[in-house]
Amino acid sequence: MQGTVLYGPWDVRFEERPDPTIVEPMDAIIRISAACVCGSDLWPYRGIEPIDGPTPMGHEYCGIVEEVGSAVENIEPGQFVVGSFWASDNTCPICRAGYQSRCVDARLMGPEGAQAPLLRVPLADGTLVATPDIPSDDLIPSLLAASDVLGTGWFGADAAAAGPGKTVVVVGDGAVGLCAVLAAKQMGAERIIAMSRHESRQRLAREFGATDIVTERGEEGAAKIKELTDGLGAHSVVEAVGTRESMMQAIRSARPGGHVGFVGVFYGVELPVGELFFAAVHLHGGPAPVRRFLPELIELIWNRKIDPGKVFDLTLPLEEVAEGYRAMDERRSIKTLLLRP
Amino acid sequence: MQGTVLYGPWDVRFEERPDPTIVEPMDAIIRISAACVCGSDLWPYRGIEPIDGPTPMGHEYCGIVEEVGSAVENIEPGQFVVGSFWASDNTCPICRAGYQSRCVDARLMGPEGAQAPLLRVPLADGTLVATPDIPSDDLIPSLLAASDVLGTGWFGADAAAAGPGKTVVVVGDGAVGLCAVLAAKQMGAERIIAMSRHESRQRLAREFGATDIVTERGEEGAAKIKELTDGLGAHSVVEAVGTRESMMQAIRSARPGGHVGFVGVFYGVELPVGELFFAAVHLHGGPAPVRRFLPELIELIWNRKIDPGKVFDLTLPLEEVAEGYRAMDERRSIKTLLLRP
Repeated sequence: MQGTVLYGPWDVRFEERPDPTIVEPMDAIIRISAACVCGSDLWPYRGIEPIDGPTPMGHEYCGIVEEVGSAVENIEPGQFVVGSFWASDNTCPICRAGYQSRCVDARLMGPEGAQAPLLRVPLADGTLVATPDIPSDDLIPSLLAASDVLGTGWFGADAAAAGPGKTVVVVGDGAVGLCAVLAAKQMGAERIIAMSRHESRQRLAREFGATDIVTERGEEGAAKIKELTDGLGAHSVVEAVGTRESMMQAIRSARPGGHVGFVGVFYGVELPVGELFFAAVHLHGGPAPVRRFLPELIELIWNRKIDPGKVFDLTLPLEEVAEGYRAMDERRSIKTLLLRP
Repeated sequence: MQGTVLYGPWDVRFEERPDPTIVEPMDAIIRISAACVCGSDLWPYRGIEPIDGPTPMGHEYCGIVEEVGSAVENIEPGQFVVGSFWASDNTCPICRAGYQSRCVDARLMGPEGAQAPLLRVPLADGTLVATPDIPSDDLIPSLLAASDVLGTGWFGADAAAAGPGKTVVVVGDGAVGLCAVLAAKQMGAERIIAMSRHESRQRLAREFGATDIVTERGEEGAAKIKELTDGLGAHSVVEAVGTRESMMQAIRSARPGGHVGFVGVFYGVELPVGELFFAAVHLHGGPAPVRRFLPELIELIWNRKIDPGKVFDLTLPLEEVAEGYRAMDERRSIKTLLLRP
């Protein structure tokens, strides 16, 4: 098959690679229905996260099971499945507590790369969730979104304790931030404030349920949130960027006793504990345990209650993956969908 | 009257000062039954937290109401009362959510200093809680502890989500850490691991409910906790020191999805967000909203269910306050009680 490989900063290639095969008895091989580029793929693409030689790319996936290993019991060939970017056994105490991304046997997807026609998924029984039937084509972008950006935004809103009667702020207008808006809406938030300066993203935020848009950033952004909340700050804030500035903006936008859920990916950022102490907020975040939410997310998508697939605003054939990276790097695209050849 | 004033590092004096008077209509004047030295008093005492000229000291208090301002309705002269080191109105949305230490009108106690025979307490209606009657002398140390160290340790255990079936780790064997052990026990924790190297503190930790003692610190301490918890880490960790090392020890001792409650006082400490992200713990802390817990704590003390007064292992006459600071600074005393003259 042909798949996507990152060779170094700004050097993505689509090239011949071996087909994946069953390696462990709990593996499954999936024929990818559509792939996409993740915001976090931009970290190694931009050279911020170093890579160790040519690296197959992609960790978001959904598709049809081709083959399963001898120990797989819950998944069978022919099923349409969605999985998280972390493979997990879903049976250990950490998984049972809802933190599948930190399963005692967690495996980060990607070693073989989901931006390709075929993908090996380890721990298939614990990782994959089958849809009720083969989905129609129009559902595929949303099911693909569930694999990462929706699940991550959902976790951010959950970690921020979004719920009825709450004012929820979302810092970050990438695909994850926009999905956090959608999640807060589904969780019954009373008011949802999206912090965004980009018109197309503001529009989608409103479509997903944002009631207010704040364009200010940093200190000014936090001051604006205070102004909109009787000087108190928001009950819930989702941080979906991953910089010190965005994290401080999130913490300063929350009221004492409020909740900050952070799902941005951080490199080398440090946080002043003294300020965190006096903020008196709850802080929770990490690699999203998407698997916890997948059954609910699939059901919402299947019944057309939510349409997170709208975050894809550019569709390219898989072989043009390099252009997808460029478009997202230059912020011409919120998120790029890659159609298999 | 004579009261305690800090003039600079290691320079505490007990000297003539004006009696406090009612300044605002919500004030009360209290005749202090006993005073004490707080671990946080050691920060300015050691010169780590700078002071702005001679500073009256002390913020933990209980005693008998002498006089109330014209707007005070719930408290009357002759009552025995306990209050938090933060005065709060207890009616604003932040107070009602249980974060009285961050009340929209919060006032830090201390401007006039509780290490003295008389103390002015602002916002008396919101701040003070009366005991059912005048307590017998043996209850006074415990009621005084409720004003800060017990309330703070309790908040730490609450923030760490201590409860039935949980393994709770306490980092820090000062009075607050020891009270966190007591709190975790009251909250029904299954296993309580105190991290301590001092024999007298280990003994009190066991008396308060610790089931295990770990003497290792830092990386080794966290590794030991993992070893004691099937490699997973604790459900709940209370941080009651206030250094980067203790905070990282706490975070690394918790399992993914676990809770870290931090009540140490931090100066200039920064935290690596990347590690916090991958730890996937809940982090919550801040200046303890002691007022939230006071009614429950007073009831437990009144009914002799808990005896947090045991943290006082040195009693001095108030006028010997300088020796109290020295004893705590040199860790000869966990916490020093000061008897009024």
